Amino acid sequence: MGGSLALALRPYLEHLVVVDTDPVALDAAANIADQATAQFDAVAKEAEFLILATPVRTIIDLLARLPGTRQEGCLVLDLGSTKAAINRAMSVLPHRFQAMGGHPMCGKESGGFGAASGDLFRNQTFVLCRNSRTGPGIEELTLEVIELIGASPLFLEADGHDSLVAVTSHLPYLVAAGLVRAAATVGDERVWQVSASGFHDTSRLSGSDPRMMLDILMTNGPAILAQLEKHQEELADVARWLRLKDERRLEQWLAQAHADHEQYRAVRKKL
Amino acid sequence: MGGSLALALRPYLEHLVVVDTDPVALDAAANIADQATAQFDAVAKEAEFLILATPVRTIIDLLARLPGTRQEGCLVLDLGSTKAAINRAMSVLPHRFQAMGGHPMCGKESGGFGAASGDLFRNQTFVLCRNSRTGPGIEELTLEVIELIGASPLFLEADGHDSLVAVTSHLPYLVAAGLVRAAATVGDERVWQVSASGFHDTSRLSGSDPRMMLDILMTNGPAILAQLEKHQEELADVARWLRLKDERRLEQWLAQAHADHEQYRAVRKKL
Repeated sequence: MGGSLALALRPYLEHLVVVDTDPVALDAAANIADQATAQFDAVAKEAEFLILATPVRTIIDLLARLPGTRQEGCLVLDLGSTKAAINRAMSVLPHRFQAMGGHPMCGKESGGFGAASGDLFRNQTFVLCRNSRTGPGIEELTLEVIELIGASPLFLEADGHDSLVAVTSHLPYLVAAGLVRAAATVGDERVWQVSASGFHDTSRLSGSDPRMMLDILMTNGPAILAQLEKHQEELADVARWLRLKDERRLEQWLAQAHADHEQYRAVRKKL
Repeated sequence: MGGSLALALRPYLEHLVVVDTDPVALDAAANIADQATAQFDAVAKEAEFLILATPVRTIIDLLARLPGTRQEGCLVLDLGSTKAAINRAMSVLPHRFQAMGGHPMCGKESGGFGAASGDLFRNQTFVLCRNSRTGPGIEELTLEVIELIGASPLFLEADGHDSLVAVTSHLPYLVAAGLVRAAATVGDERVWQVSASGFHDTSRLSGSDPRMMLDILMTNGPAILAQLEKHQEELADVARWLRLKDERRLEQWLAQAHADHEQYRAVRKKL
C-alpha cells in the first residue's frame, strides 16, 4: 500500500524517501525514491510530510517515537487498517504535530514493493478519520493527495470505520482463513483438484500478511467479535434448516442473499 | 454450463439441439444450435447423446421421464453439482440406457446462454462418477468430449465427490451468502462504500442462482452440515481467542491459514 502510494505520488514530489526494514523492498524502492533506508528516526527528523504504511501496531509504535526524533512538528498521515487505536495514539502527539487517520479501500493480498501499483487508488474510497491533532494543514494536504491519486475522500468517525470494516474486511478475512483450514484438514489431496474459481475467490484473503491481520485482530477485537457472533448465528440458522430439510426457509434465505448481492453490485456500480 | 459445453462442442457435432425453458436462452441458443426448443420429451425421443445441464433435482426429474420418451436406449451425461442423488437416479434407468455422472470444476456466478464461453473447460478438472448404468459406450464418449474441450478427467465415487465439493464449493457459497447478509443488515449505507476487492471476491458466490443452490443444499445436506459444523467450531475458537486477547493462539492460526493458502496455490499451479 505504501509502495503504491509512493508510485502514485512520485510525479508530484520534490524529494521522496522510502523507509522499510525489508532489504528486498528497499532495493525495489531505490528505483523510484531519492533515498531508500531502514532508518526511520533519521528520516522522521527531516520530513515535512510523513506517511505511515505498516501494520497497525507498528504505526502506533512509530507515532510514539516521533516526538523524540524532532523539535519542530510535521504533518502525519497513516494508512492503517483500523483507525480507533491509531487515532488515540495521534491524539497524544505534542501539539506541534498535525495528524490524520487514513484508510484507502483497496489492497492486494500480496504486499511489498514488488506488488506496488500507482493505479491502485483510482476511483476507490479513501476513508479519513479526524482526531484532536487534525489541523487545517494536514487536512488540506491529505485531500490534495487523494485528488492526485484519483480516489474519493470519505470522512468517518474512527469507531464507525472500525465497525464497518469489521463486516466488509475483517470477517471476510476470517471466513476465508477458515475455508482454507477446512480444505487443508480434509485429509484428501484431491480436495485441491475439485476446487474451482469459487473456492479461489472466496479463500483469496487467507493469503493476506498474517502480521497485518494479527494487528487488525488485536486492535479491533470487539467489533470483529460482534460480527463473528452474528455470522455464527446466521450459519446456525442455516444448519438447523438443513437438518430439518426446511426447504421453504432455505429458499427464502438464498433468495435474500441473492437480493443483497444484487443491491451491493448496484450500489458499487454507482460509486 | 450447458451453453458453454454446447459452444465448446459445436465444431465437432453433426446435429446439435438445445433444450431450455427460458425464451431468452432459446433465442441465444438459436445462433449456434440446429434447433432450439422447450420440448424435452420430443428431443429426448430422437437424441443419441443427451447432456443434462440443469439444477440437480431437475436432472433427476428428467432422468425419470427418459424411459417413457423412447423405446431404444441412448447415452446420457449430466453436469449436476452433486452426484450421489443423480447416480441413484441413473442406476434405476432401464438397462438400454448408458449413463455417466459428470461435474466440470468450473463455472460462473452468472448463468444462462448469454454468459456461455467455449473456453470455460480448458485446463479444468472434469469429475466423472460411474454408476451401474455406466457402460463402455458412454465412458468412451465422455472421455472424448473431455479431451475435445481441453479438460482433465478425474474419476471419483459419487459420495467422495459430494464430500469434497461440500468443502470447496458449498461451504464457500454459504459463507459468501452469510457475508452479504451481514453487510446488508448493518443498517448503514456506507458499508458498501468501505467495501473493497476483498469483500467483492469473498462474497462473489452469493450471486449464484438460488434455484441451483437450493438443489445442492437439498441433495447434499449431511456433507454440507458436517462442513458447516466444522466451520462453526473453527470460528468459535477464533472468537474465544479474540475474547481472551490470546495473541499467541491467534498468531498460530493466522500463520497456519497462510501456509494452507500457500499449499493450495502451489498444488493448483502444478495442475
